[in-house]
Amino acid sequence: MGRLTGGDPSLLRRINSAVVLHALRGADSPTLTHLVQLTGLSRPTVEGVVEGLIASGLVAEAAAEEGETRRQGRPARRFRFRAEAGHLLGIEIGPHRVAAQLADLSGRVRDAAQRPVAQTAPAEERLERVRGLVAELLRRTGVPRGALRAVGVGSPGIVEAGGTVRLCTALPGWTGLPLGERLRRSFRCPVLVENDANAAAVAEHWKGAAAGSDDVVFVLAGLSPGAGSLIGGRLHRGFGGAAGEIGALHLLGREATPETLLSTTGQPLEPLDEGQVAAVFARAQEGDARAREAVERFIRRLVHDVAALVLALDPELVVIGGWAAGLAGVLAPLRGELARYCLRPPKVALSELGEAAVATGALRLALDHVEGELFAVESTVTGRR
Amino acid sequence: MGRLTGGDPSLLRRINSAVVLHALRGADSPTLTHLVQLTGLSRPTVEGVVEGLIASGLVAEAAAEEGETRRQGRPARRFRFRAEAGHLLGIEIGPHRVAAQLADLSGRVRDAAQRPVAQTAPAEERLERVRGLVAELLRRTGVPRGALRAVGVGSPGIVEAGGTVRLCTALPGWTGLPLGERLRRSFRCPVLVENDANAAAVAEHWKGAAAGSDDVVFVLAGLSPGAGSLIGGRLHRGFGGAAGEIGALHLLGREATPETLLSTTGQPLEPLDEGQVAAVFARAQEGDARAREAVERFIRRLVHDVAALVLALDPELVVIGGWAAGLAGVLAPLRGELARYCLRPPKVALSELGEAAVATGALRLALDHVEGELFAVESTVTGRR
Repeated sequence: MGRLTGGDPSLLRRINSAVVLHALRGADSPTLTHLVQLTGLSRPTVEGVVEGLIASGLVAEAAAEEGETRRQGRPARRFRFRAEAGHLLGIEIGPHRVAAQLADLSGRVRDAAQRPVAQTAPAEERLERVRGLVAELLRRTGVPRGALRAVGVGSPGIVEAGGTVRLCTALPGWTGLPLGERLRRSFRCPVLVENDANAAAVAEHWKGAAAGSDDVVFVLAGLSPGAGSLIGGRLHRGFGGAAGEIGALHLLGREATPETLLSTTGQPLEPLDEGQVAAVFARAQEGDARAREAVERFIRRLVHDVAALVLALDPELVVIGGWAAGLAGVLAPLRGELARYCLRPPKVALSELGEAAVATGALRLALDHVEGELFAVESTVTGRR
Repeated sequence: MGRLTGGDPSLLRRINSAVVLHALRGADSPTLTHLVQLTGLSRPTVEGVVEGLIASGLVAEAAAEEGETRRQGRPARRFRFRAEAGHLLGIEIGPHRVAAQLADLSGRVRDAAQRPVAQTAPAEERLERVRGLVAELLRRTGVPRGALRAVGVGSPGIVEAGGTVRLCTALPGWTGLPLGERLRRSFRCPVLVENDANAAAVAEHWKGAAAGSDDVVFVLAGLSPGAGSLIGGRLHRGFGGAAGEIGALHLLGREATPETLLSTTGQPLEPLDEGQVAAVFARAQEGDARAREAVERFIRRLVHDVAALVLALDPELVVIGGWAAGLAGVLAPLRGELARYCLRPPKVALSELGEAAVATGALRLALDHVEGELFAVESTVTGRR
């Protein structure tokens, strides 16, 4: 709390504009009278703001509703938010594929696509795959590149402010890569880079398994397990952006890598890919004793990782995603073990968004950015950016 | 963001009062002119507020400074915040003792005391010990009970909003105890109950090892290890108040209890108290091989617990407190192991407040409460209370 001074007129104008736009988006083609009621602003102020928004392309006059008549003369003008005035991209960069979603300013997804990429592909090849994918999406939807207002990107690793990858063991050549800077060359709009598990947590909170919970841990149960946490509905990145990087946790218990855990021969599986993992799980389902043992080892490790997160954070809900999400049988032992070790066991659910989680979360981050600009509403994300 | 409406006059008066009081506390006996400059309020407003604050006892006219003269007539009146207008208590309830600090409204500690209590003492006896301690402190300082503005309490266990202990394995009869309600009978002011490790984290951030860091994990490395976390300078309690309750974490790695870990005979130490622990550490220092092994097992468990917290939260700093804090030799292996397993290892420091940490944090919580009321500043603590 400091001085109490009068408002800055241009700031006031901006706030009024955001308030009107916010009301316009939430209401169903409101009239000026309706907007005056919704905002508490004066009619001349609302009129001025709406004219400005129409000039900027963000608002259009809505067609009068069919059958609508007014006792006195012509019907009142109605207005609507032009969600089509701009577009957003949500991009996933993963070990095996790149994926993207294209949406309008309301967050409605218009098209999505993905391309495979080799786990061993060098950084330049992976980036080129992303650029190709984006070009294809823009071409298919007829959206000009200049209509993009923000681009969100989900990537493995610790991501610094500005979008440089501080550390990433999952993708070759990724550590130290100025990913945000590299991608910004392809766009004339803000590019926001986020850790993949963090992005997935945001996605499940937006429209997945965590839609009703503000205190959530999302576990990306892949070969390099990671986690993203929302605290009070906001992403918790940690002091250095490394919160939830639990990949090394199992080493502390002197346990093994997934390659050893899922081996049914005593020899580590090398290299372990998702197909092999699924095969081991399938054989366990069929009753193969050694496969079942391997799966039990794998689940023990997952439980250990998740329990550590739960004890540290005490979330309301844990969402399990990544490829383990497709594998039945993880939930029951996880719930049982969490009930044993946690003083206040959380709810446990599988990801609802599945493979789409990371790109969906990246899209939400782009939407947050644009909403912060247009509507002056608070974003889902806090931190040092 | 909702409607833009004019301010509520009584709210405005309250805010103006808080602004003036805040300025008064920060400045050195300011004059009215100085307060007008500091607050941006008009002179008549400041005059009115100051008269109201004098009537309430929170502000007094300061004695004119010696040698101070004014060219025209009598010197300008000066004012000061009356920190002595109210008092606060910070109480620690532990397994082996109860302790308390009494402070004025500036947070300056006027007196502190403690009394031993048996680990096996029933809840009523422990509460009686607290009441006796408080009575003694009030008597010694001559502070009337009615001058207490808020009481903070640090206790082991998961503490619910309202101050009921949801679960506590450290103190007999503590689970389910409506601790806040019971203590409120002894006071006519608010009583705020907090988990002990959480309180200690707040204390180290206030005036201890974490004074410069807003992202901190405090580990209370006792027989029932617990942790408290500050995220962005605010206490993170978790969805159900159980964040940092890491006592069960080591069980996941199928490791043992402290009683087994610190045994040098192969048999668990029973019961294990702090004296025994210190003795084992001392023998290890002297070169006793079995004691050294025991200490190594103990440190491995501590490292495991701390690493899990660090990977989940990514703090800037970890502060180690509890009785392990007095034991040299924990820091070096902890730093080494964290550097091995954490992608971004945090700084590690020993508690600076030592035994006083929990009561100091409880006092800070009481001070936060009063400051929130008097100065309308944000408190250190967020959460569901």
